[in-house]
Amino acid sequence: ELAALLEAVLMKAGLSEDHARAVGRVMVEGERDDCRSHGIYRLPWVIKSLAVGKVSPDAVPLLHENETVIVRADAGKGYSCLALEMALPVMERKARQFGLAALVINNCFHFSALWPEVEAFARRGLAAIAMNPSYISVAPAGGSKPLLGTNPFAFAWPRPGAHPYVFDFATSVVARGEIELHRLDEKPIPLGWAVDDHGKPTTDPGEALRGAMLTFGGHKGSAISTMVEILSGAMIGDLMSHEATAYDNGAGAVPLHGELLLVMSPELFSAEPLENRHSRAEDLFARITDQGARLPSERRFAAREESLKNGIPLLTAKLAELRELAGQG
Amino acid sequence: ELAALLEAVLMKAGLSEDHARAVGRVMVEGERDDCRSHGIYRLPWVIKSLAVGKVSPDAVPLLHENETVIVRADAGKGYSCLALEMALPVMERKARQFGLAALVINNCFHFSALWPEVEAFARRGLAAIAMNPSYISVAPAGGSKPLLGTNPFAFAWPRPGAHPYVFDFATSVVARGEIELHRLDEKPIPLGWAVDDHGKPTTDPGEALRGAMLTFGGHKGSAISTMVEILSGAMIGDLMSHEATAYDNGAGAVPLHGELLLVMSPELFSAEPLENRHSRAEDLFARITDQGARLPSERRFAAREESLKNGIPLLTAKLAELRELAGQG
Repeated sequence: ELAALLEAVLMKAGLSEDHARAVGRVMVEGERDDCRSHGIYRLPWVIKSLAVGKVSPDAVPLLHENETVIVRADAGKGYSCLALEMALPVMERKARQFGLAALVINNCFHFSALWPEVEAFARRGLAAIAMNPSYISVAPAGGSKPLLGTNPFAFAWPRPGAHPYVFDFATSVVARGEIELHRLDEKPIPLGWAVDDHGKPTTDPGEALRGAMLTFGGHKGSAISTMVEILSGAMIGDLMSHEATAYDNGAGAVPLHGELLLVMSPELFSAEPLENRHSRAEDLFARITDQGARLPSERRFAAREESLKNGIPLLTAKLAELRELAGQG
Repeated sequence: ELAALLEAVLMKAGLSEDHARAVGRVMVEGERDDCRSHGIYRLPWVIKSLAVGKVSPDAVPLLHENETVIVRADAGKGYSCLALEMALPVMERKARQFGLAALVINNCFHFSALWPEVEAFARRGLAAIAMNPSYISVAPAGGSKPLLGTNPFAFAWPRPGAHPYVFDFATSVVARGEIELHRLDEKPIPLGWAVDDHGKPTTDPGEALRGAMLTFGGHKGSAISTMVEILSGAMIGDLMSHEATAYDNGAGAVPLHGELLLVMSPELFSAEPLENRHSRAEDLFARITDQGARLPSERRFAAREESLKNGIPLLTAKLAELRELAGQG
């Protein structure tokens, strides 16, 4: 029901039916998993980006496939979600044939989390790594000015009969959305998340948003974030975070850049029977949880089970607002 | 001269000429770059592992190549260095043909850093990611018992006319070798590096080595470390850190496990001319250093320049010791 409503809202905002369905779906997945910062919280931004004329509302993604294991999808300045959906079956075929394949999405507006994407591959029995630049908001280790994006890095491993092992995190200490939520809630942020625009540590979310966030894990997180800029920016011939920021030029739209996914077919990485290797991976996960540690995404999967059983909790006011946006008010 | 001396020492210890040359070379590279913890500091351990009969001193690595982009090298329980050397030209060919290829090294004893390996690909104009498990010494985030290895993760990007962009770090807060050096120097370690065997934070390097180290960046580093166990352990049909530790069974030898390298040919990832993409990567590096931040490996490359100009500084006593070990005393 929420998916249909979001699709209606997005079509009303100008998106083609295919795009509206693909974009609506990832927002529903966010709400279903209680990932507020990647759910319908993003809707006003997605609509605004259409309104300012940045995003192509009906671009048809073009897939380029050749004899290499690199599949390129030109999103034609549309949202990324549809390009990924269209590339999924091609990537599955490539990965199963060659063991390993790369998906390059170019020229896309990107607002979504990466876990729905790597999870989609894991549900097909494939392992996947995904990364992309964003807007500048993070200083490199030892620096004081925003240059890197929050640059997410995600991974999924298929687990037979269980939710996949999935992580998806910003290479900043936290996602920029977390700081935005603190600002909306008028709550201070912990020290160590960010510096103000003079390079001084701050607990004020507004100052942090005007200054620079810090990378997780000091110079190591900074190195990974730089790798994300290089591989999913310069290498794939698409915009790095500082270039995406310059392209937006203050319009406040969703960022235009590319994305890189590496997809592996575990079957072909060893002559040992795949089920043995899965059993050994399961044994590792058991050893992690047996000592009281949690697997990443556990909270998200628990929220999903709850949503699938009892529906997605949504404020009545929010629902009414969506119905009005869809012209059903 | 040091390379020849190390080769003589290693052959005296029982290694075949090919293995002695390959192992000696990575130790010289460590000394040249002032990476003490991966230089001849490792020599006694490498010799001991031969003495206890764990390592095959003359295994000939077997390369398996097929129509996929996965190249498997069975090191036959020899040291990993020779297998990697032999696989380099095959991997270069695969990557240039398909854009992306994976090298799986199985069944190898592994003591070396990963930066010499990813750098070797970058010197050929290729980008590379490398990872491997090790021995258990790190607790997963939220846990208190060693289960993960220090699990290094490395990356190199080729820079025309300059040293490559390279990082290579342990997914623990520090490398285990750093804690060992603190113990040798009888210096306390900073709080936050490790817990003792009751799960309590400690500054005593000895207690830390008996307890568990912590991952860098909390749950994010822990997630990456677990990915390293899965991809370069279970997925490639080789030992994860806890299995490598069980295999050693207290013998104190170098760990037996596998390694995974992903090698990319940037040329094929975009239709945009490669030199443009390199220029934009260079522009990013300039923006990093212009704000006073450093690129990873800068210290190491500075030491290298110094060594190539003035030779590798080595204590006379150390040199005499090596000559004695080589039977030239």
